[in-house]
Amino acid sequence: MTVAKLGEHALLARIRSKLPRSRSDVLIDIGDDAAIVDVARNEQTVLTTDALVEDVHFCRQWSSPGDIGHKALAVNLSDLAAMGATPRWVLLSLVLPGQCAVEDVEELVASLGALAQAHGLSVVGGNLARTDGPMVVDVTAIGTVRPRRALSRSGGRPGDDLYVSGTIGAAAAGVEMLRERAPADDADLACLSRHRRPEPRVALGLAMGRARAVRAAMDLSDGLADAVRQVASASACGAIVEASALPIDPGAARWWQQRGRDAVLSAVAGGDDYELLLAAPPAWRGRLRAARR
Amino acid sequence: MTVAKLGEHALLARIRSKLPRSRSDVLIDIGDDAAIVDVARNEQTVLTTDALVEDVHFCRQWSSPGDIGHKALAVNLSDLAAMGATPRWVLLSLVLPGQCAVEDVEELVASLGALAQAHGLSVVGGNLARTDGPMVVDVTAIGTVRPRRALSRSGGRPGDDLYVSGTIGAAAAGVEMLRERAPADDADLACLSRHRRPEPRVALGLAMGRARAVRAAMDLSDGLADAVRQVASASACGAIVEASALPIDPGAARWWQQRGRDAVLSAVAGGDDYELLLAAPPAWRGRLRAARR
Repeated sequence: MTVAKLGEHALLARIRSKLPRSRSDVLIDIGDDAAIVDVARNEQTVLTTDALVEDVHFCRQWSSPGDIGHKALAVNLSDLAAMGATPRWVLLSLVLPGQCAVEDVEELVASLGALAQAHGLSVVGGNLARTDGPMVVDVTAIGTVRPRRALSRSGGRPGDDLYVSGTIGAAAAGVEMLRERAPADDADLACLSRHRRPEPRVALGLAMGRARAVRAAMDLSDGLADAVRQVASASACGAIVEASALPIDPGAARWWQQRGRDAVLSAVAGGDDYELLLAAPPAWRGRLRAARR
Repeated sequence: MTVAKLGEHALLARIRSKLPRSRSDVLIDIGDDAAIVDVARNEQTVLTTDALVEDVHFCRQWSSPGDIGHKALAVNLSDLAAMGATPRWVLLSLVLPGQCAVEDVEELVASLGALAQAHGLSVVGGNLARTDGPMVVDVTAIGTVRPRRALSRSGGRPGDDLYVSGTIGAAAAGVEMLRERAPADDADLACLSRHRRPEPRVALGLAMGRARAVRAAMDLSDGLADAVRQVASASACGAIVEASALPIDPGAARWWQQRGRDAVLSAVAGGDDYELLLAAPPAWRGRLRAARR
């Protein structure tokens, strides 16, 4: 059954049945003109939106509908993480080709709903539209943060150390693998998985904000090189990155070395990492380590 | 100059320069990983999202970039109006074909920004993505409402009167005119204008909610027939609509009559009206009239 044949009202009912129930801070849910939610006293509201476009951010032959739904929410959670915010609510705006299979939409929504539930978010509303072009999955994520616990890009100061969570380069190498050949081993598969189902650093961002363990933060959606430039520029600083200190994913490093390419340059230019770049003065190192635990 | 040639960072700078400055309840604005805003104490948060897709909801030969930007926000404000909410903040997610002219994007954004400013909203963030397909303008609007002042679809009771704001049918007739011929006179032009630049009933929805003058409300984005069914169903009621009492736009009525078509059926089936359907018991008529003034 295709989306065009089923019709909008029936599709909406199918989608709702795939979503977990909302928490008690949701006063009006999917199905009205808008959703109503309750932001707790002494919390500020954090708003972000990010879209995945078919054949630009994902290809349907390389990513399952479940991968697409997961990633569409994950990239938004990564933005909330970079603000030190607690994720709360999601709006899902789907722009669907008419020939799209209803089962694929259900799988996409179920996977997005599962990630939402894992992070304690409720999917409270959204929109369905059709298109004659590529699929677009546009997510708005709403979080909350206590005053003076939010992280921004602009808090860095001269002398701060720069940290990056996890490893970099895996997702960029993973996309190249998908274009060029079947995965060879577990290290390759790990790279593909980083492209298909990134895990946003929600707990880390939250811990950093709560403990005031860093001065600035940003996620690496457009790669480490871009993030360092943006944080430095917003903080009115320069920045020095030591190539030998970069935590390049071993599978990605091997992939580029085998092709005679510079792993460092490829890794810092590659997007889609969804790790966090953090800036903190050397004196805060102990606090940062404690918060990380 | 096309969007593809200019590049994302430069396009973002151009877009920012077209937007009015944010109000003081915006703590972090466009340019960070997410926006941070302050919801006043004793206010609930209202969330809605609605997308306009090229060649589905608008055609670039019939609507100017300014029309598209206006309408993309207007349809979202209409949803907030139907909840009785005060519009506060906007996120703008643009999915743009690479060959799109930068000047067109600027005109779209400036027009959206002008409508935002007219209703006291700040554009606090968004997203830019490219596409090989049609343009998508996806807006998320965030409003606030005081507890027990929100309107929903489900509050109607047996015996309530149904009201509709303004007139119906003009936008549907306007789209037909665009397909079939050049506008003949001012009545035709009014229909085109209703399709291109709908004016959301923000003040009316807010007044109805504040005065508790109605029991249920919904906007007519998918036409009056659909809205009556949805409000009745959510309120577990039936509904009777008297054809002779319907406020059909005179230009639209003439258009359909000239073509030997039933104006009532065409008007109630036609979408894109962005008027409000309201339900209230007969005894509240005085309160409703007072609130309307």
